[in-house]
Amino acid sequence: MTTTGFSRRALLGGAGAGLAVGAAGGALAHAAAVPATPSGPPALGAARVDWQGPHQAGITQPQQARVQLAAFDLAPTAGRAGLRGLLKEWSQTIARLTVGEPAGNHENQIALDAGPSSLTVTVGFGPSLFDKTGLADRRPAALAPLPAFPLDALDPARGDGDLWVQIGADDALVAFHALRVLQQQAAPAATVRWQMAGFARTPGATAEPMTGRNLMGQLDGTNNPKPTDPDFAAKVFATGPDWMAGGSYLVLRRIRMLLDDWENLPTDRQERVIGRRKSDGAPLSGGTERTAVDLAGQNPDGTLAIPADAHIRVAAPAANGGAAMLRRGFSYADGTLPDGSPDAGLLFLAFQADPARGFVPVQQKLARADGLSRFLRHEASGLYAVPPGVAGGEGYLGQALLEG
Amino acid sequence: MTTTGFSRRALLGGAGAGLAVGAAGGALAHAAAVPATPSGPPALGAARVDWQGPHQAGITQPQQARVQLAAFDLAPTAGRAGLRGLLKEWSQTIARLTVGEPAGNHENQIALDAGPSSLTVTVGFGPSLFDKTGLADRRPAALAPLPAFPLDALDPARGDGDLWVQIGADDALVAFHALRVLQQQAAPAATVRWQMAGFARTPGATAEPMTGRNLMGQLDGTNNPKPTDPDFAAKVFATGPDWMAGGSYLVLRRIRMLLDDWENLPTDRQERVIGRRKSDGAPLSGGTERTAVDLAGQNPDGTLAIPADAHIRVAAPAANGGAAMLRRGFSYADGTLPDGSPDAGLLFLAFQADPARGFVPVQQKLARADGLSRFLRHEASGLYAVPPGVAGGEGYLGQALLEG
Repeated sequence: MTTTGFSRRALLGGAGAGLAVGAAGGALAHAAAVPATPSGPPALGAARVDWQGPHQAGITQPQQARVQLAAFDLAPTAGRAGLRGLLKEWSQTIARLTVGEPAGNHENQIALDAGPSSLTVTVGFGPSLFDKTGLADRRPAALAPLPAFPLDALDPARGDGDLWVQIGADDALVAFHALRVLQQQAAPAATVRWQMAGFARTPGATAEPMTGRNLMGQLDGTNNPKPTDPDFAAKVFATGPDWMAGGSYLVLRRIRMLLDDWENLPTDRQERVIGRRKSDGAPLSGGTERTAVDLAGQNPDGTLAIPADAHIRVAAPAANGGAAMLRRGFSYADGTLPDGSPDAGLLFLAFQADPARGFVPVQQKLARADGLSRFLRHEASGLYAVPPGVAGGEGYLGQALLEG
Repeated sequence: MTTTGFSRRALLGGAGAGLAVGAAGGALAHAAAVPATPSGPPALGAARVDWQGPHQAGITQPQQARVQLAAFDLAPTAGRAGLRGLLKEWSQTIARLTVGEPAGNHENQIALDAGPSSLTVTVGFGPSLFDKTGLADRRPAALAPLPAFPLDALDPARGDGDLWVQIGADDALVAFHALRVLQQQAAPAATVRWQMAGFARTPGATAEPMTGRNLMGQLDGTNNPKPTDPDFAAKVFATGPDWMAGGSYLVLRRIRMLLDDWENLPTDRQERVIGRRKSDGAPLSGGTERTAVDLAGQNPDGTLAIPADAHIRVAAPAANGGAAMLRRGFSYADGTLPDGSPDAGLLFLAFQADPARGFVPVQQKLARADGLSRFLRHEASGLYAVPPGVAGGEGYLGQALLEG
């Protein structure tokens, strides 16, 4: 492979001119972390997210405008050595691409002129990886298969996988560039099992940073744990096994929305399905978006303000033994299905310290009792151990698993 | 359908604070047209493109970060009256959404907090529309079916259609919002035949506005006609039939790129396939991106600097009787095909005064002689008459056809 010696950083005024947004900046809303700099390089492209730290990037950071998700399966002959080589090269590549440098191998120049545009790359390990690499005894108990939930209609070809990658960026070409580089570098040790693309709001599309909307038109993420919450780390980051300390468990669900049915409901009925006002996200028990939900609150006629099957009542941590997770979902819109309905919905991504105290109890409750469920179809599912971040210069993702 | 009375404009400081980018601004690169305004509303969301004028918006304007394309088929019972009602409602909706107001009907609130984000909606008529509405005698000769080209592998279910819509915006939710509103308003007179999503660079991702790159990593669009060219209108806009004066003809091709094969070529071989340097787009005959191509230029060894089958030689207007068109293509990346290769490439969109003097002669040449053809698969095709813009307040798209 030829290389040009071209550094994207040079175009953007040198590395020092970039705006580094470290893990500690994750609590900042996106637009706030990317101020406009009219006299310098455009802030959107120049914004950088530090890939090193106790946790991988792409967990606590605000969602980017674009995401590429992919799962890879390891070749039967790859083994532990093949996995180690792949993770070393990917780690070096992540270090380069996230500061806007070209890849060392398989550089395709798709993103040549663009800055890193808040690129993050997050890597996870599926349960099947451990058997294939002789590491079954190190597989975390938290990676036990998810139970079957009522209403699930899962396509295994679009779920699971030995390795999982989340590539987020505020520019779609930057995200696709990274996907193709990682894919080419992985071959022949690993090949793509499935790939999905999603989107969230572009920074600057709203007058000020705010909670995002999903394709049902609802604000989505109001009650997400905040990095400033005292129990944030306990909810999101694992403490074990040893090699997973500082890591997290990611549950992926591709959730199609039955938008034709949903949009035919009057807005006030949509609001009772969710339990919040659609325009501003205020709970139907009163107040504004951030007002605590009053599950006992009543309407003037004595009925519950938040109906018994409202999504926010059924999903409330208080109703699920305190179960909580950090959701970082993206919308998807992949055209139309053969019946003409939209193949669109939510790429649900939730990071948590332990799925048994996060996604599993919540979804068991939702699948049975949530009024929203009749407008949703869970079509794909995955569970991955997301190892901790890389602390130093020479480390690589998964090193503590492979060399521990 | 309930409405909230909510005006997205209010969030963005009133209509006057928006930045209108009229058709005359089309020659400006996108980032230049959307300056940062750190003390006011974010420029990306507030940027507006005037929908009224001699031409529809979305032709001469720079590409937005996101596009939704869809074709609709008219119901057998709709007839001319159904089409008229649909086009009237769509025109009113386009007028509202492009200034950031909610739709009059079927408002879904997906884009409630966002500004118009340079939204444009462009509507075209497929050849099949004219028979269904008793207007066969008014179908333009320029809408004659495209000839079959060598190497075509077209899926009719993903091409053609009675009506065609291009929705561009710098925010993905704004684009999807408009798609769903138009789709719901169209029913039952017309239903979606196919829908595709594409992307281009996000404004600000590069240090300064520049030619975009496609998924092969090449600069794409260097020689596109510019609105400031003296013969621009003659190349792009139709003069007849009467109801099409100021309109344009749009050729759509979904062109999959064989990226695995392409990326396995060394960069210098890729450059000889195209005829330009990959890093900066300079022709291999010398100079920089904008330097005129010297088709007779030779290498030191006497061979042609631009190879005989190089894309820019075969596609050059001089080689095709001066044929030219305004390309406004978007990349797409729709996951992987069953064989594991990427389902990714170019949603080729080309506006022209007459396909017989634009796309047809160029593609006949390319399909036979272009070295790039072996890395491409044309998988879907469409040809549409894009009527002129709406001049006044009460007009609607296609009025001169339906009432002429």
